[in-house]
Amino acid sequence: MGLVVQKYGGSSVADAEGIKRVARRIVDTRKAGHEVVVVVSAMGDTTDELIELAEQVTPLPSGREFDMLLTAGERISMALLAMAIKTLGFDAQSFTGSQAGVITDSSHNRARIIDVTPGRIRNALDEGNIAIVAGFQGVSQVSKDITTLGRGGSDTTAVALAAALGAEVCEIYTDVDGVFTADPRVVKKARKIDWIAFEDMLELASSGSKVLLDRCVEYARRYNIPIHVRSSFSGLPGTIVSSDNPNKPEGGEMEQAIISGVAHDTSEAKITVVGVPDKPGEAARIFRAIADAEVNIDMVVQNVSTASTGLTDISFTLPKTDGQKAIDALGRVKDGIGYESLRYDDAIGKLSLVGAGMRSNPGVTATFFEALSEAGVNIELISTSEIRISVVTRAEDIPEAVRAVHTAFGLDTETDEAVVYGGTGR
Amino acid sequence: MGLVVQKYGGSSVADAEGIKRVARRIVDTRKAGHEVVVVVSAMGDTTDELIELAEQVTPLPSGREFDMLLTAGERISMALLAMAIKTLGFDAQSFTGSQAGVITDSSHNRARIIDVTPGRIRNALDEGNIAIVAGFQGVSQVSKDITTLGRGGSDTTAVALAAALGAEVCEIYTDVDGVFTADPRVVKKARKIDWIAFEDMLELASSGSKVLLDRCVEYARRYNIPIHVRSSFSGLPGTIVSSDNPNKPEGGEMEQAIISGVAHDTSEAKITVVGVPDKPGEAARIFRAIADAEVNIDMVVQNVSTASTGLTDISFTLPKTDGQKAIDALGRVKDGIGYESLRYDDAIGKLSLVGAGMRSNPGVTATFFEALSEAGVNIELISTSEIRISVVTRAEDIPEAVRAVHTAFGLDTETDEAVVYGGTGR
Repeated sequence: MGLVVQKYGGSSVADAEGIKRVARRIVDTRKAGHEVVVVVSAMGDTTDELIELAEQVTPLPSGREFDMLLTAGERISMALLAMAIKTLGFDAQSFTGSQAGVITDSSHNRARIIDVTPGRIRNALDEGNIAIVAGFQGVSQVSKDITTLGRGGSDTTAVALAAALGAEVCEIYTDVDGVFTADPRVVKKARKIDWIAFEDMLELASSGSKVLLDRCVEYARRYNIPIHVRSSFSGLPGTIVSSDNPNKPEGGEMEQAIISGVAHDTSEAKITVVGVPDKPGEAARIFRAIADAEVNIDMVVQNVSTASTGLTDISFTLPKTDGQKAIDALGRVKDGIGYESLRYDDAIGKLSLVGAGMRSNPGVTATFFEALSEAGVNIELISTSEIRISVVTRAEDIPEAVRAVHTAFGLDTETDEAVVYGGTGR
Repeated sequence: MGLVVQKYGGSSVADAEGIKRVARRIVDTRKAGHEVVVVVSAMGDTTDELIELAEQVTPLPSGREFDMLLTAGERISMALLAMAIKTLGFDAQSFTGSQAGVITDSSHNRARIIDVTPGRIRNALDEGNIAIVAGFQGVSQVSKDITTLGRGGSDTTAVALAAALGAEVCEIYTDVDGVFTADPRVVKKARKIDWIAFEDMLELASSGSKVLLDRCVEYARRYNIPIHVRSSFSGLPGTIVSSDNPNKPEGGEMEQAIISGVAHDTSEAKITVVGVPDKPGEAARIFRAIADAEVNIDMVVQNVSTASTGLTDISFTLPKTDGQKAIDALGRVKDGIGYESLRYDDAIGKLSLVGAGMRSNPGVTATFFEALSEAGVNIELISTSEIRISVVTRAEDIPEAVRAVHTAFGLDTETDEAVVYGGTGR
């Protein structure tokens, strides 16, 4: 029996009862003969309460101190969890990100892991302990300051430790039963996915599925660590994310398209740069300005230029929260580029269909657009990859569009599954 | 202008307003040209809330994990305090006990400082920062685990850093105006002491004065670091505790007794071992049994034995909380020692008069006992040192006894000072 890394989110350890329930689950895994490393988030609302305290003290908290503050949250949950496990008769020790050897760069509030040196964790395991590690945090390589990893940081901590320790699986416990073929809040007949490939999960995650963030999936894919997303409440098997389907059907690997699911995202806005001179380097200047403002963009579409004017339009989507920053950045380079105007639209939604073999199966694209058309949904932008088709529509059309596509690809389940859907940002 | 270490207790940083008020006070000191290192306790009730959480999870939390849990408290207050200082336009960085180089032994929940290596603090100061350090915590030398220092730990952290950094003074900010000649809740006419010698403060602290704990005073005396106990609310000068009176009167150093104050303590119990064979080694066996049970005893009194029986009684006082442990320990050695019985009494109080030159001024002792006699207070035990007389009485007699002695030694102030009295355990 090998080593298992388990990660529990804030909603799983929201109170003393939750912590005791999680402790029992951990001990069950230990009893089954596994070595267990647990990564835990802060309890329920702790992080929000700490943020509120900071806001009461200053409108603009310093990054270093904000990280020092927030990391108190995991410190509390991990110590309580270790106590609860010891009460069940098993040895447990808790470790901060720094103690666990999670080495990061110096970008406070959104640090990236650059190395994991889990010597103390390995020793704790060798001495028979269950090791509890604070998620979401690390220590910067140069200044030795405490850092936090930003959104999805606890999941990434878990995967990074799993990779560094050679775990056989990284279990991500959450408050849903796994990854679904669509958001169950929108599609009542969404089905739990038993297995999904890293690549498909990556596309789902970057297309709006919130169960796993792309960052964590990328890390797992790079080190080939299988992820098992499952509920800390039900204990049922969830979704395996890996490179190879463990339950591959006999004679599998056929070339038909395998649709993984439908993701949607209404957190983005669209900016259209109107009347851009259609000559080499203009797009580069636009996106350099955006990048310098530290704005991440998602879809990019450029239409064919009108021959008569020599001008073209460039549209891209980005998080609504970065909208003002991008508009300001583009405003500053308007004279240099010589575009005509900017249009900003934050009432958009994005819908993505993800699945392997999509491009080589023309029927998929046809079925996709037929379904949207029959649902009366107007399409504003289209972008595709090897295993994904995304469209931008009006935000208000998204629920109907998701349901239509989900049904068209035969993803609807027969029975209505009862699902609680949510998720924590860490 | 030299380096100043300031320590702020939990009641001074109970909420965002308190943190901002403390930040302004720190910045004022910085503006006056000092380098400033700040030691801060957890906010208000944070520690109690964390303890309650632990109790919800387990009846018997492990020491290591309990320390990990509790140290989250200072992490929150120190980060917020650093943010608040930065908002005022000064650079500040917060440091955990471990980062500040507070090295301790491995006794969780009551660790002792064995070394202080404040390299990072010194660097932070050299770079122009105000350094904020978590009180009450350190890191164990051998296992590198997080430890807490137990009662009075934040004060001790402050004094230890002051010693290691060569500070000119260690300011202990609290919610009272300084050290008083008696507990102002009991003696309305208690006077604030402007200066007190280390030795007298030690006796007051170990006799029940709660403003400073003996442990912190001992440390300051050993390294000769002046302590300034003062209010974080009023900002008035408080009490200087040092080896030399900075305001020594002209031609001072006369040999008359200088009474520092009256302390009392009703947190102790008295155990009397009745009918102990009066032969060498019996007392040693009794106190070895007590020591093995890790009980600290305070006063010890043995009466002259009755010649006819060859038996004597040994009485001692100890914290009420250790009463059962001591009784159990003595019960186990009863047959070996052959005493007759044990008497346990937890309705006692201790009153101590502290002052230099006491023993060489016989008038002091006489005045002391006359005052108690006139107040109708019955004395059960007496114990003296070079600069202290302590008596044990009924607990209910203590307030009246303290007032009587305070008045008899001319300690009463003319004006009624308005004083808020309290104190935090850390």
